[in-house]
Amino acid sequence: MMGKVVGFGDFILRLSPPGYQRFLQATSFDVNYTGAEANVLVSLGLNGIETEFVSRLPSNAIADTAILSLKRFSVGTKFIARGGERIGTFYLERGASQRPSKVVYDRKHTAIAEAKRQDFDWKVIFYGADWFHFTGITPALGENLPEIVEDACIAAAAAGVKISCDLNYRATLWTEEKAQPVMKKLVQYVNVLIGNEEDAAKMLGIVPENTNVTAGELDFSSYASIAEQLSKQYHIEKVAFTLRESTSASENNWSALLYSDNNCYQSRKYRIQLVDRVGGGDSFSAGLVYALKKDWDPQTVIEYATAASCLKQTTEMDFNLSTEAEILNLAKGDKSGRIQR
Amino acid sequence: MMGKVVGFGDFILRLSPPGYQRFLQATSFDVNYTGAEANVLVSLGLNGIETEFVSRLPSNAIADTAILSLKRFSVGTKFIARGGERIGTFYLERGASQRPSKVVYDRKHTAIAEAKRQDFDWKVIFYGADWFHFTGITPALGENLPEIVEDACIAAAAAGVKISCDLNYRATLWTEEKAQPVMKKLVQYVNVLIGNEEDAAKMLGIVPENTNVTAGELDFSSYASIAEQLSKQYHIEKVAFTLRESTSASENNWSALLYSDNNCYQSRKYRIQLVDRVGGGDSFSAGLVYALKKDWDPQTVIEYATAASCLKQTTEMDFNLSTEAEILNLAKGDKSGRIQR
Amino acid sequence: MMGKVVGFGDFILRLSPPGYQRFLQATSFDVNYTGAEANVLVSLGLNGIETEFVSRLPSNAIADTAILSLKRFSVGTKFIARGGERIGTFYLERGASQRPSKVVYDRKHTAIAEAKRQDFDWKVIFYGADWFHFTGITPALGENLPEIVEDACIAAAAAGVKISCDLNYRATLWTEEKAQPVMKKLVQYVNVLIGNEEDAAKMLGIVPENTNVTAGELDFSSYASIAEQLSKQYHIEKVAFTLRESTSASENNWSALLYSDNNCYQSRKYRIQLVDRVGGGDSFSAGLVYALKKDWDPQTVIEYATAASCLKQTTEMDFNLSTEAEILNLAKGDKSGRIQR
Amino acid sequence: MMGKVVGFGDFILRLSPPGYQRFLQATSFDVNYTGAEANVLVSLGLNGIETEFVSRLPSNAIADTAILSLKRFSVGTKFIARGGERIGTFYLERGASQRPSKVVYDRKHTAIAEAKRQDFDWKVIFYGADWFHFTGITPALGENLPEIVEDACIAAAAAGVKISCDLNYRATLWTEEKAQPVMKKLVQYVNVLIGNEEDAAKMLGIVPENTNVTAGELDFSSYASIAEQLSKQYHIEKVAFTLRESTSASENNWSALLYSDNNCYQSRKYRIQLVDRVGGGDSFSAGLVYALKKDWDPQTVIEYATAASCLKQTTEMDFNLSTEAEILNLAKGDKSGRIQR
Amino acid sequence: MMGKVVGFGDFILRLSPPGYQRFLQATSFDVNYTGAEANVLVSLGLNGIETEFVSRLPSNAIADTAILSLKRFSVGTKFIARGGERIGTFYLERGASQRPSKVVYDRKHTAIAEAKRQDFDWKVIFYGADWFHFTGITPALGENLPEIVEDACIAAAAAGVKISCDLNYRATLWTEEKAQPVMKKLVQYVNVLIGNEEDAAKMLGIVPENTNVTAGELDFSSYASIAEQLSKQYHIEKVAFTLRESTSASENNWSALLYSDNNCYQSRKYRIQLVDRVGGGDSFSAGLVYALKKDWDPQTVIEYATAASCLKQTTEMDFNLSTEAEILNLAKGDKSGRIQR
Amino acid sequence: MMGKVVGFGDFILRLSPPGYQRFLQATSFDVNYTGAEANVLVSLGLNGIETEFVSRLPSNAIADTAILSLKRFSVGTKFIARGGERIGTFYLERGASQRPSKVVYDRKHTAIAEAKRQDFDWKVIFYGADWFHFTGITPALGENLPEIVEDACIAAAAAGVKISCDLNYRATLWTEEKAQPVMKKLVQYVNVLIGNEEDAAKMLGIVPENTNVTAGELDFSSYASIAEQLSKQYHIEKVAFTLRESTSASENNWSALLYSDNNCYQSRKYRIQLVDRVGGGDSFSAGLVYALKKDWDPQTVIEYATAASCLKQTTEMDFNLSTEAEILNLAKGDKSGRIQR
Repeated sequence: MMGKVVGFGDFILRLSPPGYQRFLQATSFDVNYTGAEANVLVSLGLNGIETEFVSRLPSNAIADTAILSLKRFSVGTKFIARGGERIGTFYLERGASQRPSKVVYDRKHTAIAEAKRQDFDWKVIFYGADWFHFTGITPALGENLPEIVEDACIAAAAAGVKISCDLNYRATLWTEEKAQPVMKKLVQYVNVLIGNEEDAAKMLGIVPENTNVTAGELDFSSYASIAEQLSKQYHIEKVAFTLRESTSASENNWSALLYSDNNCYQSRKYRIQLVDRVGGGDSFSAGLVYALKKDWDPQTVIEYATAASCLKQTTEMDFNLSTEAEILNLAKGDKSGRIQR
Repeated sequence: MMGKVVGFGDFILRLSPPGYQRFLQATSFDVNYTGAEANVLVSLGLNGIETEFVSRLPSNAIADTAILSLKRFSVGTKFIARGGERIGTFYLERGASQRPSKVVYDRKHTAIAEAKRQDFDWKVIFYGADWFHFTGITPALGENLPEIVEDACIAAAAAGVKISCDLNYRATLWTEEKAQPVMKKLVQYVNVLIGNEEDAAKMLGIVPENTNVTAGELDFSSYASIAEQLSKQYHIEKVAFTLRESTSASENNWSALLYSDNNCYQSRKYRIQLVDRVGGGDSFSAGLVYALKKDWDPQTVIEYATAASCLKQTTEMDFNLSTEAEILNLAKGDKSGRIQR
Repeated sequence: MMGKVVGFGDFILRLSPPGYQRFLQATSFDVNYTGAEANVLVSLGLNGIETEFVSRLPSNAIADTAILSLKRFSVGTKFIARGGERIGTFYLERGASQRPSKVVYDRKHTAIAEAKRQDFDWKVIFYGADWFHFTGITPALGENLPEIVEDACIAAAAAGVKISCDLNYRATLWTEEKAQPVMKKLVQYVNVLIGNEEDAAKMLGIVPENTNVTAGELDFSSYASIAEQLSKQYHIEKVAFTLRESTSASENNWSALLYSDNNCYQSRKYRIQLVDRVGGGDSFSAGLVYALKKDWDPQTVIEYATAASCLKQTTEMDFNLSTEAEILNLAKGDKSGRIQR
Repeated sequence: MMGKVVGFGDFILRLSPPGYQRFLQATSFDVNYTGAEANVLVSLGLNGIETEFVSRLPSNAIADTAILSLKRFSVGTKFIARGGERIGTFYLERGASQRPSKVVYDRKHTAIAEAKRQDFDWKVIFYGADWFHFTGITPALGENLPEIVEDACIAAAAAGVKISCDLNYRATLWTEEKAQPVMKKLVQYVNVLIGNEEDAAKMLGIVPENTNVTAGELDFSSYASIAEQLSKQYHIEKVAFTLRESTSASENNWSALLYSDNNCYQSRKYRIQLVDRVGGGDSFSAGLVYALKKDWDPQTVIEYATAASCLKQTTEMDFNLSTEAEILNLAKGDKSGRIQR
Repeated sequence: MMGKVVGFGDFILRLSPPGYQRFLQATSFDVNYTGAEANVLVSLGLNGIETEFVSRLPSNAIADTAILSLKRFSVGTKFIARGGERIGTFYLERGASQRPSKVVYDRKHTAIAEAKRQDFDWKVIFYGADWFHFTGITPALGENLPEIVEDACIAAAAAGVKISCDLNYRATLWTEEKAQPVMKKLVQYVNVLIGNEEDAAKMLGIVPENTNVTAGELDFSSYASIAEQLSKQYHIEKVAFTLRESTSASENNWSALLYSDNNCYQSRKYRIQLVDRVGGGDSFSAGLVYALKKDWDPQTVIEYATAASCLKQTTEMDFNLSTEAEILNLAKGDKSGRIQR
Repeated sequence: MMGKVVGFGDFILRLSPPGYQRFLQATSFDVNYTGAEANVLVSLGLNGIETEFVSRLPSNAIADTAILSLKRFSVGTKFIARGGERIGTFYLERGASQRPSKVVYDRKHTAIAEAKRQDFDWKVIFYGADWFHFTGITPALGENLPEIVEDACIAAAAAGVKISCDLNYRATLWTEEKAQPVMKKLVQYVNVLIGNEEDAAKMLGIVPENTNVTAGELDFSSYASIAEQLSKQYHIEKVAFTLRESTSASENNWSALLYSDNNCYQSRKYRIQLVDRVGGGDSFSAGLVYALKKDWDPQTVIEYATAASCLKQTTEMDFNLSTEAEILNLAKGDKSGRIQR
């Protein structure tokens, strides 16, 4: 499967106080251009997969800069519609120990939020593609977005393009009530469904038993059962969950599972000393898509995706800058962190 | 005149690449909370004048930080209405030599843009005040703003509060066609009118003769004549103009004039090696209001305001952090820049 | 209890090499204005309590800057006497793992060290106040300071103002022999006494049994017993201790106890991945004062103060910038550190 | 002329102390990937011209990073041969006023210095190209380089591709004696020859009269005459010279001339407050190639190239990040540096 | 033993992205001059031991800067031969958690690599010395280096100077096949042999049993046995090993053993939260040499060396800036990391 | 004259907000260890002159760091007495254009201020020396200092050591009334007297005619006449004056004159775009001492000293890091600032 991967979503500025400064202390913000789907494409582009990012961004120097940040990683940008008022932003204060990270969103009225169906000619976009990735953030961005995402799914399906979706519930963008009908419809087109320990409940109404996400311990078997339910209910080939055990803002346990062909494959669990956990889920999706395109066996697939996303969380900013060689080294078991001279 | 000065306007984030970096190079932005009227109040608050800033800002941690940046300089914040979606931002790339500074605005849909007349109880606000300052930016911010500014002017006038207005034309917020009827109406309430070399033409349709603002030479007598016309036509006590001769993005000539009681007073002209020219006009307004409240003679008034704004432009960020003593030292003629041990 | 909180003490510059640099490596110092009592007021001011800081600072631009750093958090500064030679400084090198943090003090001959009794009109100062806070640092600062602090205590008591004292022994300022007679006298005025695991012994001569503060394990019952002794011996309403178990310069255990009405309440114990532990005790005092003013029950009080000081230690610099909402969230048990979007 | 522009040369790290620090003071170096030909392609790529960079770089993570810095600006990198020991570096200390900038080169034994003729298949490389650019640095880099550059010229000529050459004499790479025979041979293939005020003498042995490059005044007519001689002697269509008058390390005069069709066109002269003068010549070459590809008239061509390189020198680092619109704005005469809102 | 310590080796630039940035993210590199033997001398010089560093460096401003960095710590530099083409560099990306640190070397063709025997007059150099230290890196640097190191050893032995050698295998400089004959010869001159958990196998062909260095658990008795074998086989007085258990790139266990007079002394084991682990081995060697020169007992010696190298790893950059007092404090057991006021 | 140069004075921390930040904006201070006499020795040490710095500094880690900053430049530190309470500090805010630089001193109660005569054994100190340098700052530092400086002068004279003195009046340390009797006495021992445009008047009561130092124009002949008077009145061999014309805080004119053997030699005048003007006078003294020790002719001496101090003012921080070669290049007339590759 050597075709192009298409992603569709927003692309925004992340503005973060340096180090562990709080908003009240910052005299500068580190800036990072980010978006759930774009982050996936960057990981793929860096590792030699052809990619194309579809979005809508305004015609100004900040959006130009954002676009160049994608080109650097060989992500195609020619289907980014230009127009609209603004590029979204959000402010991220990094937590530590018992102090949680904090996000202030400012992503309404963005160019993509005001996109129209005719902004995107999906037939042309999917030419040469064999994979389409989107997340549950995209349909939440604006009035026309559910319809536009469905257009994309229909065109992808018609072109024989595989569809992956990371559920990615964002309470600041919509409510569960608004999200569920949209997502239940879109999920029907999906071949590979990805979620974290909260998404299935919020987006599709399927609740894990015996689990309290703030308590720092997750029960694998509950998630395996949810994955199976989702796979059966929506006829989805593969369902993957990341499982984060948050014991503090500085250290997390991280593992994942993959439900595929009636089996559930469980990854190693990593105890991560976090550098920057944002983008962890996106790097998992990227690892999953990459490994599935390579036709690796399911256990290798889930180990690769988990190792990829573990490495992301030890890396500053939202892009996962790890190479296949680095990810495989970890996926195969060397987590000693010894210097590589 | 020892009463409180009230200002009304927006308060937003300025995000600037450090030093002379272009947007394309920035991995961080210096952050600075700013607003034309707030900047005036900060200068006054720092020098012991009681002030009160009226605005509308959302309820989030970034707006909280913005408000604390005002408190630091003793600017009153209790009449800032909280609500709405977002705090505005703009991106500023600092120019050098022949390369101009560049601004990308993102200040639509802000909390103040969606303000309603009932958000502000002007009678209460003006209690204890003797001065009201606003700029031509405020009525440009949203649908209801012209009306709200007029409410404020009427209340101020009723309370015997002096009104100063800095015309401050911003082409990115409205057109001359939209601006002129609004401003012509509001100017009727104004006691002290302030503008730069372009404002009178753009805001009130009065064009200076013999002047090309990009050519680097301005003709004083033209501006004196415009000031006189404005004073007579709108029955304004005092009209002041700042006159910037831009010979490059690194060095400018800066001077000003004050039309008062049928006379025109001209300040010294400074050749400024610019550190940060943004906020130059605001610091001039602050100097003018401060000097007028002190009841100094007109020549001292215009020298003080010009020296204040000269010093601002040798200072990073939008606030003028100069003290009365520093400003007077320059206004009285010591521009040697010798170390003060 | 909605009255004003008055604090009295020094306010100095903290100069710290960035990150984990040693003094020998620093080409710059991060600067932070700090003082044990001022830090308490900042926490209170940020959370809406009216405060007034009493001190003495020289008339120069650095002291002016220090004062504005307090205004930003709504701390009243009108009773800060101006005069004297210098503002104090200290140098702080941040430790890591087995390498301890290191402090070089330069806080002699400061303005407050040379203060005179007549610099402070306590009757005026306590007008409208219902709480007075000082620490054991203040009487150690200069010859007249024990007397001045006693003046303040007498005036506070006369005005029905509650008095809290954080013992805060500093071996670089005085010896145990010098400290004990002073503190034993002052403690008689105190309603709420605060200390850490070493203070009671050093300041008041009461030694815990079975405890070695460098061994990383503390015995609660010993401290409970000391608290009870202190309460009985000096007729103090409430005695609180913070208990730090230093296992390394990077991670500490942190908990506290409150003796009140013949009962001893013990807080949760936090394992903190330290960002900046300086100011931990001050934020505890602030949390305690805040919670006591709210008339919460003793268990809530001690949980609140402990959570507040836990959050401080995950925050850069000496001020605790946490809000009531953030502190309560932790105090109620969510220590997962998950991102708050 | 919408074909691809090919460049061939080295690509190295520039390591510079921040700001005006001297080497002895630096605890960090700003890093910038640069090369004379690559810089030209970046300017073209940023403005929509298709480009391809040919070079040889080692297989390591630093060279990977260098390559990504080109992709960001749409510069093609697929003909960069990978192999060899090292990527070159140089250290640049920025001068100020009377203190000159200082360069320490470390660019021997680089991958390209050890390139072999068979590393480059010029026929394939020039497929779809209509322009080839190289500088006098490339043949100086290693033993085989003169031959490889000639291979490229022959292939380019055979494919009807225009050839531009920037003479760019570097005394640290070779001597005039070594350079002249090589360059005299290569120049015979060249259609557009570019040089600065010293190059013609050093590289081709043609000396301007009446000029002392360190004295800060250059004589246009001498350079016009040299351009004419070069054009006639080597049958070169167009010859362009940049003329730098160095009055200090902080301010230079900058202008240029173009000899074309028996006429000599002279540009405006700019007084530049320098931000970073390195890369000035490369940005001139890029402007020239861009303007010639647009088929603009000779005066516009030389004004465009001069304005482009003026703007570069007001920009940090070696890449010229100016857009066509920005360059034209200056080329047409607005050098006021006024803020563009 | 109060004589001078001589070290012989290379001295190069370490270029590291700040914090946890990856190479791909760095816009600057922190710079640090380093070399295995020089690092040892810096530790000694800082603590009052007379030292002399022997090396070869080019005549340029970067090498001058490197040399001054040694003078600062009282390291003698008068026997550094000047000449050759370049000073070496390497790029270091700091790892975190499961992501390993990464090194890209660029240290071929350096001045020392091209040194000749006649560059060093060992008889003069060892005048007044009583100790010579080198590492296994030095003979790997260039063709003549094994012979030059042997010259030094012969001269040292002749002058009654003790010789210590840190095996320090570097796979990027030579292969085990090339290294073993060289090192087996040089080791015969050595009085004190130092290695880490991999060196003995790679350099001298002696493999520990039952140990997997990437698994995070080391078996002391195996290393004791190797030390004994080495001591006996090569007639070496003292053999010391550092033992690193890498559980992640952020936390390691660190201990050491010393074989001396038929006994094996084992140090405390430290769990280190790593700040910068590079230079850990060098600081161990320095601690060992220092303690042996002080004639302390073997257990104190190994505790001192281990504590010294523990502290280094909590310190930024390659130099160990710890003083004897700081090291002894830890060596004696206070690892609480409490603030030292 | 190849003997050692001894300097005697204070050594303190300079704390400066980065760039053009005002004190009110600084969240960090750049740190720089400095002292008028030490600065002179650093310039000499860097250029191969043996030097010894005599002072008194406390026993703490900050003073240790200060001392190492001198060792780096080969300045001898073995006669620095250790003891006393504190190392001095001062805060420096860098001016720009019309905004002057601002200094806040905190240098009372320092170790040297409390020095006693017995702290310094001048006979031992001057062993091997042929030059002694001090400034008018040293006797102003404390009660015993005038006597100690006179001790040094007497010992120097007895040992045949030349004495240079830079008058360096500091109004924050003493008054003209206090200074004049002290300095008039000390000047009698001086062979080479150095001053700036204000010093002679303030320190020795000799006023230049026709000059206003804040007006930006100085009259050479007045200063020549003062130099002659001083030389004659106090039997001083050589008198040198630096002449600063401050037209702004960003640009100054800088020149100097030397009165020697009844002639007055005038240097070139430089228009300096200032980077950091502090330390300009010290670097002039260093250049003068250096050139006089080389026995160059008077015109070369004054050109060298002036060029040295011109270069200092284009360099960050107080040390002049220029080499003889760099200074001679400028002294001989190349002020073009062209890149030196």
